[in-house]
Amino acid sequence: MTAPTIARESSPESPSGQRWVFMFDELDQAEERVGGDWDRVRGLLGGKGANLADMTRLGIPVPPGFTVTTEACIAYLDSGGSFPPGMWEQELEALHRLEAKTGKRFGDLENPLLVSCRSGAKFSMPGMMDTILNLGLNDDAVQGLARKTQDRRFAYDSYRRLIQMFGSVVLGVPDEPFEHIIERFRQKRGVATDAELTPEDWQAISEEFKQIIWRFTGEEFPQDPFEQLRLATEAVFKSWNGKRAIDYRNATGIPHDLGTAVNIQTMVFGNMGEDCATGVAMSRNATTGEKTLEGDYLTNAQGEDVVAGIRQTKPIHMLQEEMPEAYQELERIARMLERHYRDMQDMEFTIEHRKLWMLQTRNGKRTAQAAVRIAVDMTEEGIITREEAVLRVTPEQVDFFLHPQFTLAAKQEAQQIAKGLNVSPGAAVGVVALDADLAEQWAREGKPVIMVRPETKPDDVHGMLAAQGILTSRGGRTSHAALVARQFGKPAVVGVAELDIDLTERVIHVDDRVIQEGDWISIDGTTGEVFLGQLETMVPDISDPWLVKLLAWADAFRTLGVRANADYPRDAQRARDYGAEGIGLTRTEHMFFEPERLPWVQKMIMTDNPTERREALEALLPFQREDFKGLFRVMDGLPVIIRLIDPPLHEFLPSYEELTQRLADHKIRLLNAQTLQEVDELLRQIEEEERILQQVERIREANPMLGTRGVRLGILMPELTQMQVRAIFEAACEVAKEGIRVIPEVMIPLVSHVNELQAQKEALEAVAKEVMAEQGIQVEYKFGTMIEIPRAALTADQIAQAAEFFSFGTNDLTQTTYGISRDDAEAGFLVHYLEHGILPENPFATIDRDGVGTLMRWATERGREARKDLEVGICGEHGGDPRSIQFCHQIGLDYVSCSPFRVPIARLAAAQAALKEKLGDRPQY
Amino acid sequence: MTAPTIARESSPESPSGQRWVFMFDELDQAEERVGGDWDRVRGLLGGKGANLADMTRLGIPVPPGFTVTTEACIAYLDSGGSFPPGMWEQELEALHRLEAKTGKRFGDLENPLLVSCRSGAKFSMPGMMDTILNLGLNDDAVQGLARKTQDRRFAYDSYRRLIQMFGSVVLGVPDEPFEHIIERFRQKRGVATDAELTPEDWQAISEEFKQIIWRFTGEEFPQDPFEQLRLATEAVFKSWNGKRAIDYRNATGIPHDLGTAVNIQTMVFGNMGEDCATGVAMSRNATTGEKTLEGDYLTNAQGEDVVAGIRQTKPIHMLQEEMPEAYQELERIARMLERHYRDMQDMEFTIEHRKLWMLQTRNGKRTAQAAVRIAVDMTEEGIITREEAVLRVTPEQVDFFLHPQFTLAAKQEAQQIAKGLNVSPGAAVGVVALDADLAEQWAREGKPVIMVRPETKPDDVHGMLAAQGILTSRGGRTSHAALVARQFGKPAVVGVAELDIDLTERVIHVDDRVIQEGDWISIDGTTGEVFLGQLETMVPDISDPWLVKLLAWADAFRTLGVRANADYPRDAQRARDYGAEGIGLTRTEHMFFEPERLPWVQKMIMTDNPTERREALEALLPFQREDFKGLFRVMDGLPVIIRLIDPPLHEFLPSYEELTQRLADHKIRLLNAQTLQEVDELLRQIEEEERILQQVERIREANPMLGTRGVRLGILMPELTQMQVRAIFEAACEVAKEGIRVIPEVMIPLVSHVNELQAQKEALEAVAKEVMAEQGIQVEYKFGTMIEIPRAALTADQIAQAAEFFSFGTNDLTQTTYGISRDDAEAGFLVHYLEHGILPENPFATIDRDGVGTLMRWATERGREARKDLEVGICGEHGGDPRSIQFCHQIGLDYVSCSPFRVPIARLAAAQAALKEKLGDRPQY
Repeated sequence: MTAPTIARESSPESPSGQRWVFMFDELDQAEERVGGDWDRVRGLLGGKGANLADMTRLGIPVPPGFTVTTEACIAYLDSGGSFPPGMWEQELEALHRLEAKTGKRFGDLENPLLVSCRSGAKFSMPGMMDTILNLGLNDDAVQGLARKTQDRRFAYDSYRRLIQMFGSVVLGVPDEPFEHIIERFRQKRGVATDAELTPEDWQAISEEFKQIIWRFTGEEFPQDPFEQLRLATEAVFKSWNGKRAIDYRNATGIPHDLGTAVNIQTMVFGNMGEDCATGVAMSRNATTGEKTLEGDYLTNAQGEDVVAGIRQTKPIHMLQEEMPEAYQELERIARMLERHYRDMQDMEFTIEHRKLWMLQTRNGKRTAQAAVRIAVDMTEEGIITREEAVLRVTPEQVDFFLHPQFTLAAKQEAQQIAKGLNVSPGAAVGVVALDADLAEQWAREGKPVIMVRPETKPDDVHGMLAAQGILTSRGGRTSHAALVARQFGKPAVVGVAELDIDLTERVIHVDDRVIQEGDWISIDGTTGEVFLGQLETMVPDISDPWLVKLLAWADAFRTLGVRANADYPRDAQRARDYGAEGIGLTRTEHMFFEPERLPWVQKMIMTDNPTERREALEALLPFQREDFKGLFRVMDGLPVIIRLIDPPLHEFLPSYEELTQRLADHKIRLLNAQTLQEVDELLRQIEEEERILQQVERIREANPMLGTRGVRLGILMPELTQMQVRAIFEAACEVAKEGIRVIPEVMIPLVSHVNELQAQKEALEAVAKEVMAEQGIQVEYKFGTMIEIPRAALTADQIAQAAEFFSFGTNDLTQTTYGISRDDAEAGFLVHYLEHGILPENPFATIDRDGVGTLMRWATERGREARKDLEVGICGEHGGDPRSIQFCHQIGLDYVSCSPFRVPIARLAAAQAALKEKLGDRPQY
Repeated sequence: MTAPTIARESSPESPSGQRWVFMFDELDQAEERVGGDWDRVRGLLGGKGANLADMTRLGIPVPPGFTVTTEACIAYLDSGGSFPPGMWEQELEALHRLEAKTGKRFGDLENPLLVSCRSGAKFSMPGMMDTILNLGLNDDAVQGLARKTQDRRFAYDSYRRLIQMFGSVVLGVPDEPFEHIIERFRQKRGVATDAELTPEDWQAISEEFKQIIWRFTGEEFPQDPFEQLRLATEAVFKSWNGKRAIDYRNATGIPHDLGTAVNIQTMVFGNMGEDCATGVAMSRNATTGEKTLEGDYLTNAQGEDVVAGIRQTKPIHMLQEEMPEAYQELERIARMLERHYRDMQDMEFTIEHRKLWMLQTRNGKRTAQAAVRIAVDMTEEGIITREEAVLRVTPEQVDFFLHPQFTLAAKQEAQQIAKGLNVSPGAAVGVVALDADLAEQWAREGKPVIMVRPETKPDDVHGMLAAQGILTSRGGRTSHAALVARQFGKPAVVGVAELDIDLTERVIHVDDRVIQEGDWISIDGTTGEVFLGQLETMVPDISDPWLVKLLAWADAFRTLGVRANADYPRDAQRARDYGAEGIGLTRTEHMFFEPERLPWVQKMIMTDNPTERREALEALLPFQREDFKGLFRVMDGLPVIIRLIDPPLHEFLPSYEELTQRLADHKIRLLNAQTLQEVDELLRQIEEEERILQQVERIREANPMLGTRGVRLGILMPELTQMQVRAIFEAACEVAKEGIRVIPEVMIPLVSHVNELQAQKEALEAVAKEVMAEQGIQVEYKFGTMIEIPRAALTADQIAQAAEFFSFGTNDLTQTTYGISRDDAEAGFLVHYLEHGILPENPFATIDRDGVGTLMRWATERGREARKDLEVGICGEHGGDPRSIQFCHQIGLDYVSCSPFRVPIARLAAAQAALKEKLGDRPQY
């Protein structure tokens, strides 16, 4: 938490005679001052001020006003709290020009000029000083205003608002005593709303408000309007270094030396009668993106009333009937502003006696669907280019189309009971099932299920596939549950520590609440929220015509290929539908866990007898061959990278803990056994379990992540990977004979020394050639390797001698480069690190450019030096992360590979990376 | 096993008229042919030929002869088995010159010239063709020889030797039938030795030998002496590609394209009467290095008889009495050869009728002690330079001085029962103790103990310290047992799979043998051998004056500093005695395992209550402070690097397996409990164990190596490392007040991101300053970090901003860079990898230059760029490995740190690295 110091390099010594203040209609001069660059104008005048000046120049009716520059703010703060020489005089001069423009006078008793004062920094920033309205009123001027408007109620309401806002914003008086007084008056009058209070009440309230100021500050509310203005200006300057503002800048990376501008603007009033109004409007529908004005307004009201929600607002189209000229003017201005700012606008306006005044415009917030449609429509309207359209939609917005979502209404009414990590987006609703088998059974019976577990393991996958969503109490962003969920596009929330899952009693405790197995819950994988009951969902659609168009444009811009990680034909089909250009990773071991295969896998592991092992492998071969045939058929004409077995073999056996627990239970039951038959049966079981335990003990490792897995298995047990390669090439040849173009790429994992790769490749390529000779058909193929160990990256030039392609396994590469076991860390110290800013971000979510990224760059360069046509891609989780995709583009990878559900996102992110490179990538806050 | 191909680049096309043959007295011409370089002369003439020519030129009496060059051999092999044009003619011409020199004629019936034929490659190489003596004899010439020497017995003995050697060496006839015939003649004569056979017997034997040749080959023994010579020459050429020769070259890295030379030399005879003799002599004592001739001889014998050991040889000093002139000539020649070859010589000689002939000289093999003394003596005699002396002694030879050794005699008589990994050198003898407590108890009672365990753990250390040596049936070179043993200089043999240790019956089974606890065994940590019984040992001495001198010279040459890894004052004292210039690593956690501390450590881990934790830490602080005071006192004036706690906390608690086993046992006992009291007690124990188990489960990790340890602990639990730093600085200040110069360097382990280091350093340096302020004294200090995670190396420029020193932890750096868990791998796939040549060497023994080394070089360069005066060292096991030390020198480290017992070795290796850099480092075979 660095304290901001304002000793800046970029601020020149203020020359005497410097311009500190610009009228809204002096934008040309401001441009001249900073060299015409719009970004620097925003830097000088702040976003709001620049915008008001810009609208003024466009001829849009904006109440006259002026801006005190950010440079003035910086000079004020640098000097320890003095206005820079000449600034105040310039502010007064500007005020006089306002008087001239409006024909009113500041502090005048008859026709007083009232102004608002607002902060406005270059980037929109919460935590800075808010608006003060009605500056210029005092005990005398309020009477003049009452006379002039013939509306005492309006005048004294305006005055008490000034005192309240000035008190809280400038003088730091809390809001409660002010509210308390109004409440007291309502009670006294026996009324429910402020609107029912009389002009006299408001006058009396103003008096009491002034006393509050006096009580809290020991000073009178300043009657001198110029003093009001001076103090308000200073308050804005000081708010730049308020705690919330500093925290916000630290959090978002906004520099501390920018300063804020101050905008002083003539007040206009929407509350001066039934021909007055105030409201907000969007130039297009922010939910759907449709090109119609959207918004709300109130007649006879001030802006804050619209937001406060005290009165029922009217939809903007009613204004067309009530004040058709003003409405048409608003629509005309909206279109003009859209063309000018080249984006959908969010506007504030006030109508004073039928005259429309624009108070603010800015780019409007919108839903994902609206964002896509507006970007595409505006391109087709000729307002923006295709490049801009592609850059304007965020990858997260594309993600929205891929998952069901809760409706806004449903969430507002719902009962949130816990929150965890949002690891796989989308909404899911179902009944709680506490194990995979039950989840599968209920799903078969047609019940939607949320599978809830402390954590998941590979043999839970069938339940996870059957479920609508997954919820765990442990685990991090790359836990098994998270990985599998993302892989299959299942909404998931993990690491919900509040959940106390009792697998014996089959209930979940959350605080004092008890959720029974079978109860309905809803989870939001986009936000991490967990709700009780069945929430309503809606399903956006990836085939949305605007999205399809946008992604097609993106494809034309990107140079990075996009492939998918897919283990089954159904995933591959989805990937292809979503635009994948190949499979970047097929994990063959997932297939081993299927119920009809696992016994053979275990037999292969348990035996020391070569014949038995061969038998087991021969039994597995047809299964694998069929898996691959399905993949090859779906990916006709596209490459399919198949990774040979990767995990340590113990993962296919029951765990040590499970076995010792079972053994202990059996031994205790043995002591209590009643019949000889029971004893026999228990002894048999104990013997069998001890046999398995022995094997588990034999192959268990202190650090399995760094143990006997990947290529090491293939070298110790060549018959295993040879079986896999035989299955791949038998499948490839058979499918090729169907007239399909197959391009298998065999990937060898966990290589750290070129000799490992060389030895495996020789042994395996021989099998490939043997199969092709047997089948009498040749297929295109490659042999390559994962780069997931630092040493492989460091010796990439050597590795590339033996590898025809590289694929960065950035999950493992991050683990080894950082020396972090992610399963342990994401439930442990990494959380602390991220919370305390020790690490700026989770390296498992976004590639760590300094460390892992350095190795990737090094390996790509060295690898290509050694082999010109080396194909280099990435298949770690990072392949679906937009910032990581940008990095992959920058270091010149050939493709990224990600889960099918991230493919559209990757297509967009890759295009954005290419465009940012072309157009220059400026930091956005 | 690559098959050697002899398509060479370095051999020029043989020009017609090329010299294929050089007389021994034509060394000048040979030198001219290759440009005078001695290495290339050896390449041309082979080591033996070059040597014989060299001796000839020195005027030493060498029987005349000539050499057929290695180029002829290569041409022969390249051509598929034809002598190159002109070679045979040159060989005949050379033979004629021999005839002229000796006045004898080849194949002459009256005065036949006899020659020997020997192979001789550039590098000495077993597996090539051996000697053939007496070429030139046939059925006629043998009679001439008998007449000329008037010794029929000699003549026919010589003839039958020729037939036998020619048969076995040239024609491939086995030895057995020849031996069988001689045996038959002895039986017939009823005599015991060959010497008792008559001339007639030998003549008859010759006849039978010829028949054996005919029976085995279908050809007659060649009567034509020139045919004998031609076949012998060819046999030598062919033997270059014999299987054993190829295997040897593959194993030692000798190139396959060098070829061998053929040496043809006039026979001289030591078996022509009592004024003849033959023998071998060393120019100095090969055991002690003393400067006296050493050797054995026989009168009236041929060279092979000396080696065969049939007759009792005489010590060389008896020759002084028997043939004083010959002896003095031998001594004169020995000194001349020493000066010429600048090394101790191993010579073969023959005396024919009192005339001394030198047949061979080469550098002599010697013991470690002799090597050191000879190198130093020769330097002081002005024969070699100090640089050469330092380069000539190997680090392994220095190691010899640091450990007891079995006497040669003891080993020859001993009964070896098993062999394992030689992980910590030296000999140890003791009674078998199967646990640490018993080992300690017996040692206290004065019994020498060998502690034998399946493997060791941190809480076995007290037993290991008490034992003479350590023997385990499991584990690899960097297992706990190996690390601790090397650390404390205890001989150790680990991974002896043949040992079946039965901890219940307290016996060890080895094959059919049973060793009871308490039986005597002896282990040789230098070779990995395990013996039954008590073997005699001898203790070399590090204070050997020659060694002291040599190491002092080494110190003057080296630029690399040498520090020691030491945890206790007694280690530090030894390190300093051995020449360490500081402590490069103190592991503070070892101290935590001591019995009076462990309970506090466990309490600290188990509690969640901050007050209890603080109490535990406060209890530990005085212990740590005393540890450090001891170290600082010993290392007065030298830096002491103290590493803060590194291992994961679970290492201080009982293991999960142990706890679940205990719990299961207690539950079973509970079912059988007889009394209420027993039940109560068991329930109490179960409750306590379940509490610990819960904690163990809470902190256990899937991959503890990559888990919550090192700096991560310090960040999660700052009070722990703050206690350590307080202890360090309280100790430093208190000792400084005693007038001792203390230089503490605080080392933070397992850093992967600069922010971790920055955060810890800030928290800790504050404590250091606080303590110094409290104590009113300032001490010099540094804060630095281990570089043991690839990311730390990759971002060394950032890390160096916060670190004043780097120390490479190459054990962990190798694990993470290679993705290898060494505990698992060294008992697992790494063994297979090394056996099958997948990895050229164990990266935990010698630094992997391509991978780990690249990171070290990168980190050193980047680190120094960021901080000019950054101190960079290494404290991994590699710091004591000579080849790794050379690498550390090459990349410019400031120092290496190793176990105290490796310090003298490191001093020598560092000097050799510096000298090799200066002088150029040529490969040696």
